[in-house]
Amino acid sequence: MADPRFFNRQGPFTLGEIAARVGASLSNPLDSDRRMLDVSPLDTAGGDHLSFLDNPRYLPTFEQSKAGACIVAAKHARRAPTGMALVISDRPYRAYALAAQLYYPVEPLVPAVHAGARVDPTARLGAGIVIGPGAVIEAGATIGRGTSIGANTIVGRNVVIGEECRIGPLVVLSHCEIGDQVTLHPGVKIGQDGFGFAPDPAGHVKVPQLGRVIIGSRCEIGANSTVDRGAGPDTVIGEGCWIDNLVQIGHNVTVGRGCIIVAQSGIAGSTRVGDFVALGAQGGLAGHLTVGSGAQIAAQSGVMHDIPAGETVCGSPAVPIKQYFRQTAILQRLGQKKGTQE
Amino acid sequence: MADPRFFNRQGPFTLGEIAARVGASLSNPLDSDRRMLDVSPLDTAGGDHLSFLDNPRYLPTFEQSKAGACIVAAKHARRAPTGMALVISDRPYRAYALAAQLYYPVEPLVPAVHAGARVDPTARLGAGIVIGPGAVIEAGATIGRGTSIGANTIVGRNVVIGEECRIGPLVVLSHCEIGDQVTLHPGVKIGQDGFGFAPDPAGHVKVPQLGRVIIGSRCEIGANSTVDRGAGPDTVIGEGCWIDNLVQIGHNVTVGRGCIIVAQSGIAGSTRVGDFVALGAQGGLAGHLTVGSGAQIAAQSGVMHDIPAGETVCGSPAVPIKQYFRQTAILQRLGQKKGTQE
Amino acid sequence: MADPRFFNRQGPFTLGEIAARVGASLSNPLDSDRRMLDVSPLDTAGGDHLSFLDNPRYLPTFEQSKAGACIVAAKHARRAPTGMALVISDRPYRAYALAAQLYYPVEPLVPAVHAGARVDPTARLGAGIVIGPGAVIEAGATIGRGTSIGANTIVGRNVVIGEECRIGPLVVLSHCEIGDQVTLHPGVKIGQDGFGFAPDPAGHVKVPQLGRVIIGSRCEIGANSTVDRGAGPDTVIGEGCWIDNLVQIGHNVTVGRGCIIVAQSGIAGSTRVGDFVALGAQGGLAGHLTVGSGAQIAAQSGVMHDIPAGETVCGSPAVPIKQYFRQTAILQRLGQKKGTQE
Repeated sequence: MADPRFFNRQGPFTLGEIAARVGASLSNPLDSDRRMLDVSPLDTAGGDHLSFLDNPRYLPTFEQSKAGACIVAAKHARRAPTGMALVISDRPYRAYALAAQLYYPVEPLVPAVHAGARVDPTARLGAGIVIGPGAVIEAGATIGRGTSIGANTIVGRNVVIGEECRIGPLVVLSHCEIGDQVTLHPGVKIGQDGFGFAPDPAGHVKVPQLGRVIIGSRCEIGANSTVDRGAGPDTVIGEGCWIDNLVQIGHNVTVGRGCIIVAQSGIAGSTRVGDFVALGAQGGLAGHLTVGSGAQIAAQSGVMHDIPAGETVCGSPAVPIKQYFRQTAILQRLGQKKGTQE
Repeated sequence: MADPRFFNRQGPFTLGEIAARVGASLSNPLDSDRRMLDVSPLDTAGGDHLSFLDNPRYLPTFEQSKAGACIVAAKHARRAPTGMALVISDRPYRAYALAAQLYYPVEPLVPAVHAGARVDPTARLGAGIVIGPGAVIEAGATIGRGTSIGANTIVGRNVVIGEECRIGPLVVLSHCEIGDQVTLHPGVKIGQDGFGFAPDPAGHVKVPQLGRVIIGSRCEIGANSTVDRGAGPDTVIGEGCWIDNLVQIGHNVTVGRGCIIVAQSGIAGSTRVGDFVALGAQGGLAGHLTVGSGAQIAAQSGVMHDIPAGETVCGSPAVPIKQYFRQTAILQRLGQKKGTQE
Repeated sequence: MADPRFFNRQGPFTLGEIAARVGASLSNPLDSDRRMLDVSPLDTAGGDHLSFLDNPRYLPTFEQSKAGACIVAAKHARRAPTGMALVISDRPYRAYALAAQLYYPVEPLVPAVHAGARVDPTARLGAGIVIGPGAVIEAGATIGRGTSIGANTIVGRNVVIGEECRIGPLVVLSHCEIGDQVTLHPGVKIGQDGFGFAPDPAGHVKVPQLGRVIIGSRCEIGANSTVDRGAGPDTVIGEGCWIDNLVQIGHNVTVGRGCIIVAQSGIAGSTRVGDFVALGAQGGLAGHLTVGSGAQIAAQSGVMHDIPAGETVCGSPAVPIKQYFRQTAILQRLGQKKGTQE
């Protein structure tokens, strides 16, 4: 189904191979040799396609689906249409992700330093890397084994990039260390000066930004997002964080492991974020705050105070979610009762 | 008036030529041979300048203007100062736009593949195109007749770009098809992975993003905006949409024809937007919603629910505009009545 | 303390030299010959480090600090630990900024036009400039003495850039004049078309954008920010403005001197902003407004009306701050009193 101009499909694979790869089991072991040609959503899948059911609101689609096989939780198995092979998983979306990776793996690199790339002779280049056309690798930079650098990207002086990273085109990196298996999408800017100055009517005075940016392994950062370097301490993004497009991370911010930071949100200077925090789209954290691990911040929220671990907040200014729903309900009621309080 | 270092003015043109071009009529046919040298705003126009009145709040300026000629609705004609030639139109701003295009047409291309551009030999290049210096055109890409590709822009493998497009510098295109007469401003990023993964404390698992981006003809997309490719279905922008700077369009989003999407707004994954919808600056649409044709979403709104066709909503969370005004009025009254409810 | 791979430290300097440079005085003139090796925050500074105390909430850290010397206001001097040399200033953060600049000055340029840069023969290049690899300098552009242009940056036709500017990599400049000592961070886009068109169901009609962008001297603009050119009048940023990352400035906007515009905020078309205005992160100003000098707009505010000089506003829609606090307090109380008004 994926456009073959853009995607190279592997396979087919048997359901036995798939179940083994994704850590699932077959509802009927006799299905083990059935071959699936591709992955596909429930509504477009055919008899040689593997699909998945995760969100229960798609149960009616599941019941009507013509998919040859489907990854599904055990509790929904009985609602499958006749003849559908079932791959049972307690995390069907995760299992689907792994299966789709089987059919559409990351394309292997063809190691090359392209014509027009400008690599300083003091740069250290690992084995099997790609340097795209027009890319600039400055003095002393280190690029780990199996990493690719996109076209026209700039890797600044003494920057360190780990192994098996995918650095997109038109990225700028300076004053930073990047871990292994990091993906930076096109247009990401990392390591520029933070927004630091002493305000002065006679001319604001720049405070030299003397820290770095440290990006942990297995992070992914979306297109045109920006991460400023620290003012003295570093700006730190922990391992396995997923950051969406057009996100701003200010100087001295520290983000823990596995955080999810959605598009167009921002974190102001010196705020400390724990592990597995989720920050919704267009949300903002003010500076110098502490956000506990597992906290969830709804889209468009504006956080002005510390958030305890595990709390969910909404609104601008952000409040705990129960309070937010009461506020919103009251406001909507007031807005509807024309004339009563007016 | 426009700085001649940056703009090449054509003309002069007679009012007869102008009226014919913009679909208007002259209040006094004897003005048909009067020549106008340039276009200019009401307050700075002189006797050989063509101006326009659209917003009635500029009527006092109109009454004082020294413009030689003015495009104006019939109902305001009587308030014109003596001696001003009147070009009567029921859509004065549109007529002005066409007249200004007459004086300042899009500059014709000087076809060339510039030194330093890297064009794969398998790319298909139409007649009369420009490939800017440092641009990279990857294998199998198609660039239609009369299209220009800006300096240091990357056109990825098998990407298709239509005819007479203006693709700015430092753009990245991958996994996409672009229609005809599309304008992409500097820094636009189209076709990168959507924000798709199965959350997992042991490491979020990437869901391969197997769709494309389809951009309709006559779209315009602003500087540094981002459009992610679909996860399986495509991300689709309909014909004639105008998208401003720093906008985020998530994976699987479909936008109809003629929509207006203002700066720094965002549309989350899988949301379906009808035709001629307007989304205000810094507004956000949550994922998996349906927004009917003609809906209007005010700036900074946060839309959490489907919106019927033609409805106007405001606020975060967004509510219908009448309800929003009542909410706001009540809140402001409560805020002023210090002590009464406190 | 700063990573020597990325920062070149100067010095050491005596406290006498430092006090003279930053316009401060020593609490004890006998300290004048004490040498300081580096600058450092209070909590990590050692005996040969200069630190500073600005925000009183760090007084406890100050009392425990092992810094050899500290820049501090006279009123806090008595709380210093024994043996700490005191540099007395009524603006300690500003004085620290100047001291840090002494240790970590902007690196001097090594004038060069790098291989792979494409400079039109009609461009005018001042003395002592740097043109990075892959940069494109178009016909008629002027680059002032001592200015650097980053790698793969595009300087458009007839653009004027002043002296001693630092233009980062992957910047695009067109239709603009840039003053002296301006810093543009990576990915800034200046001078593209504003968002101007006459809406029309048959196809929106572009209004030619015939103005320029004028950036005053000593401005700093953050990564991936965008400034559109005017529609006829110019877009103007006054001297000494500091603009953060991912900010959008619309066409015809005028901003006065010394304004502070924080990340992800936006100013819509034709709005006029006075001097020394502060616009918080993710805030928005609607179009055609007037904001008086010294006004302060809180983060995430949405300004729909003119703001008088000196006023502070918050909220969306924005209201004066006292009113905002009352609104917020009442809302939070209503949200807590479950059942009373429900």
